[in-house]
Amino acid sequence: MSQPLQYNELRRDPILGRWIIVDTTRPRLPESVLRKDYQDEITEPQNCPFCPGNEKLTPHEIMAQRQPGTAPDSPGWSVRVFPSIHPLLRIEGEPERAAVEMYDMHLGVGAHEVIVETPEHNLQLCSLPDEQVESVLWTYRDRILDLHKDHRLRYVLIFKNKGYAAGATISHSHSQLIATPVTPRTVRQELEGSRKYFNFNNRERCVWCDMIKTELDLEQRIVLVTKNIIAFCPYSSRFPFETWVLPLNHSHDFTHLGKTEATDLASVLKNILGRMNRALNNSPYNFVIHTAPNLASRSGHWTTIAGDFHWHFEIIPRLTRVMGFEWGTGFYVNPTPPEMAAGILRNA
Amino acid sequence: MSQPLQYNELRRDPILGRWIIVDTTRPRLPESVLRKDYQDEITEPQNCPFCPGNEKLTPHEIMAQRQPGTAPDSPGWSVRVFPSIHPLLRIEGEPERAAVEMYDMHLGVGAHEVIVETPEHNLQLCSLPDEQVESVLWTYRDRILDLHKDHRLRYVLIFKNKGYAAGATISHSHSQLIATPVTPRTVRQELEGSRKYFNFNNRERCVWCDMIKTELDLEQRIVLVTKNIIAFCPYSSRFPFETWVLPLNHSHDFTHLGKTEATDLASVLKNILGRMNRALNNSPYNFVIHTAPNLASRSGHWTTIAGDFHWHFEIIPRLTRVMGFEWGTGFYVNPTPPEMAAGILRNA
Repeated sequence: MSQPLQYNELRRDPILGRWIIVDTTRPRLPESVLRKDYQDEITEPQNCPFCPGNEKLTPHEIMAQRQPGTAPDSPGWSVRVFPSIHPLLRIEGEPERAAVEMYDMHLGVGAHEVIVETPEHNLQLCSLPDEQVESVLWTYRDRILDLHKDHRLRYVLIFKNKGYAAGATISHSHSQLIATPVTPRTVRQELEGSRKYFNFNNRERCVWCDMIKTELDLEQRIVLVTKNIIAFCPYSSRFPFETWVLPLNHSHDFTHLGKTEATDLASVLKNILGRMNRALNNSPYNFVIHTAPNLASRSGHWTTIAGDFHWHFEIIPRLTRVMGFEWGTGFYVNPTPPEMAAGILRNA
Repeated sequence: MSQPLQYNELRRDPILGRWIIVDTTRPRLPESVLRKDYQDEITEPQNCPFCPGNEKLTPHEIMAQRQPGTAPDSPGWSVRVFPSIHPLLRIEGEPERAAVEMYDMHLGVGAHEVIVETPEHNLQLCSLPDEQVESVLWTYRDRILDLHKDHRLRYVLIFKNKGYAAGATISHSHSQLIATPVTPRTVRQELEGSRKYFNFNNRERCVWCDMIKTELDLEQRIVLVTKNIIAFCPYSSRFPFETWVLPLNHSHDFTHLGKTEATDLASVLKNILGRMNRALNNSPYNFVIHTAPNLASRSGHWTTIAGDFHWHFEIIPRLTRVMGFEWGTGFYVNPTPPEMAAGILRNA
């Protein structure tokens, strides 16, 4: 008889409405958290589960860009996607939501996938050929579109942790995807904030489009502009060298990406990450894509967001420590003004 | 002729309404951020500006608990408060708020103070005599009450960074205070969330009081209960071993602290920090006090919060790294369920 599936718990804060994933299936004792033995970074190719030839070390692949005639879970791929070996959320099962005493709990149903960006163990994302980066972007799009068919899932988040300090446990270049059965709080607040601005302006102006126009007028915070894409350090950057990358033409949904835009985005992303590496001595970074939620799910009250939201990448180099003040208030201190950061990145 | 005062800038995110302090007076280049030369931890007593005899290394003291007959800015104190030598916000000047293109800016007026908790260079807060910890608590209260007389200031945040990884730059035991001319976003959301629950329940039940009752019923997440104070690991803890400390009797304002409650709180705080040290190998931590905003300021729309808010300490050991997923969503992953964490702390 097979073991019943074990799920983590999604728990909601009764005051802030913030969701937390509590790892009830692999709970860690302080010794393990302190010794960090579950989070040593794997850097040697022979032990690397993301290297070609080691496909058996990962769960079965979900999709891959691969050479014709090569079999799944074997070499021959250029981008490969599979479920995380320790998934925070599982795709199987019904999303069960229940009261636990006065609290709100949701069974950890969702998805947690790994997107290996290249078969080359030692190449960073910013050193890949442009077409390879574009291939990674199309893979992001394909995975979001596929998971949006699943009505249980309300949001698909693509993110990348580069470097140990940024949360990576394996050095081989990869991104991750987490699909959640609830809309994450920051995303919801961003959607709500964008809509408020839109409504205030007679439902005619997108706050992101207005920001792009302002930045183009002022120039001082722009890092790079191409025909389709803009990269700038936002006026109220939380972190030194925080950089946002957006399409110049209004679009609320990353999956609507067109071919010329994708080519442009790949080259801008590569360019920005390269500049950060040079200016910031290869420092660790995170990026996340913020895009429209799954409109087919119960978060259907967002179906009219086409006009008010604007997809974007947020890239955050991990240079500073976050102090108690910042956890306690959501009020960040940024030691490097974005005008200065943008100037340094432009010259890097 | 004296130099005109220089202010940092408070900048508001146009989408989320989050305020950022941008350090425009001492902007840091990447070399400085990377080399961390402005943030080396000072650990030697002879260089320590917080040690008795070195008072001249700090700005003039604002207040001190001192032996009768000793002069300000000289030894003889047990707790000493002075402005930060690099204040993020300055007490002088009018709070100027202005539009900068489409953005919202506020001159960096406010307060940033240091509270040295003991003259002993090598004693941690959890190793001080109970009366000394109580003395620190009364100092917190006195500083909040004093700053609340200033109608420009909307919120006074007391916090502590212990250990380099938690943001401390000097090892000598101290806390900090930042008073802001705007209500910080997390605090505002907590006040709003508490009020929503209160209103939903016929304006009769405080969410924090209900949480206390639930935790007392269930017992599993409680670390310690005394006559006046409870300490528990919250149901939706963001971080392993996150612990909240609250008064059992409803009170929205930390400055209403009574004598017996203060004695009890001092001993609970000391006890919890000691347990964390033992269970977590002296790991760095932060704590913050969440209390009512300045009701005399323009944030007067909170004047009726007496029923719905409940002051508390949030203590956060700094064990885990925060990954891109978490910055991108406000959706935290906690590897140690709070039920397990509470059990470990109870036995430590």
